[in-house]
Amino acid sequence: MSPMSSPLPYGETLDAFHRGAFRLVQPSLKGHRSGIDAMILASAVPADFKGKIADLGAGAGAAGLAVASRCTETHVTLIERSPEMLLYAEKSCTLPENAHMQGRLSCLQADVTMAGPARHEAGLADNHFDYVIMNPPFNQHNDRATPDDLKAQAHVMHEGMFESWIRTASGILRPRGHIAIIARPANISEILTCMERRFGSIAIVPIHARPEEAAIRIVITGIKGSRAPVFLAPALILHKSSGHEFTPRAESLINGCDSLL
Amino acid sequence: MSPMSSPLPYGETLDAFHRGAFRLVQPSLKGHRSGIDAMILASAVPADFKGKIADLGAGAGAAGLAVASRCTETHVTLIERSPEMLLYAEKSCTLPENAHMQGRLSCLQADVTMAGPARHEAGLADNHFDYVIMNPPFNQHNDRATPDDLKAQAHVMHEGMFESWIRTASGILRPRGHIAIIARPANISEILTCMERRFGSIAIVPIHARPEEAAIRIVITGIKGSRAPVFLAPALILHKSSGHEFTPRAESLINGCDSLL
Repeated sequence: MSPMSSPLPYGETLDAFHRGAFRLVQPSLKGHRSGIDAMILASAVPADFKGKIADLGAGAGAAGLAVASRCTETHVTLIERSPEMLLYAEKSCTLPENAHMQGRLSCLQADVTMAGPARHEAGLADNHFDYVIMNPPFNQHNDRATPDDLKAQAHVMHEGMFESWIRTASGILRPRGHIAIIARPANISEILTCMERRFGSIAIVPIHARPEEAAIRIVITGIKGSRAPVFLAPALILHKSSGHEFTPRAESLINGCDSLL
Repeated sequence: MSPMSSPLPYGETLDAFHRGAFRLVQPSLKGHRSGIDAMILASAVPADFKGKIADLGAGAGAAGLAVASRCTETHVTLIERSPEMLLYAEKSCTLPENAHMQGRLSCLQADVTMAGPARHEAGLADNHFDYVIMNPPFNQHNDRATPDDLKAQAHVMHEGMFESWIRTASGILRPRGHIAIIARPANISEILTCMERRFGSIAIVPIHARPEEAAIRIVITGIKGSRAPVFLAPALILHKSSGHEFTPRAESLINGCDSLL
């Protein structure tokens, strides 16, 4: 990735991803700053995928922009509850450096936990999208390590969060539409329980920082309405046993040169 | 493993495991024949583990005998519903070749799906064991590929099977006792759901035949009453991308020279 951060006025940075293929405006000191997780999540979408993609809880839009940049026959909608974070996403969408994706990006301010008519009124129609990606908040509610409010909103998950996010994903996806989630291994059981009533052909990809350590993340994908069983794909290893460089496979995925599955 | 099979009269074989460290009497033509799965399951128990171990649904006793042979401070009870399969287990327990484990092995005929007073009457007391291992049947009930009855009993799983087996495991384990299960990845969600109310510190170990293929098995371990989160351990890879030899790690585990976790 090597995001080349340029400090901008008003506490923003302009970060390059995919070896400079696109840029992202992010808050420099507060809020959630995107990186590896967003790039790995984006790599779950095949490069030749065609269709409408929703990035649920998009934050500043890193994962959604990475999909739009790499998958050139997609239209990506960045959906985010926080107006402040969405403002960063909107700035990124209009950057001259991202001109190759303009016309294939939209921003929508909406709370992804909504259901029924409220969700429809917010602009999220049923059976509309072909692929949903999500990187939900992952800290426990009682894990109060984040002092600023913007960051707290991005990082803190609430009881029933996976149920409401996955319910929305299933609602806005067309039948046989795809989902990809990046999360912590501790949430695997809750996520599978929420998915199994709605999705099949579920693939779990463990992500390990180092080959001999427990996984730090999982990517879970699925197909709406499929009845095919769960499978456990080969793991992605980010680094070798020692050293800071990425493995060739991780380097390739993070830089938008390959697909996770 | 290289089980050196000697054909015996009456349709039995005498198979060597752990490079000849112990032998197993098995039906030669019918019933479930044990191998790699049982050896991998047995490797989940640390070599220096001390205490009482139950092998639930032990069949001819391969996994339980492998634990008793490698973990020399354990007493292993082989628990099996089928009197015919248990007869093979009893023969193995009294073989001169297994003399080093005699006095540390018991056989018990009992249906592990029983609960409450029926389970107690069958000889399975609550809070008794320190470690439970299980290799439950893994074929779907509607997958009728097995013509003989003895084999069918060992291979066919029923609705709610994991719930009843894991309920029994939890019941007969002491608080903070350990469990290890080998199963198919397709059952990961059901197993986690059954375990999470009773066990914590749950570790999932994916088992892949080859590095680039989906996992063929999972080993799931846990500690009764723990509240620690699920973790996803590094995978065990049985073979390299090509060739039939085991990887050094698989060879070591299957032959009783190392522990899975």
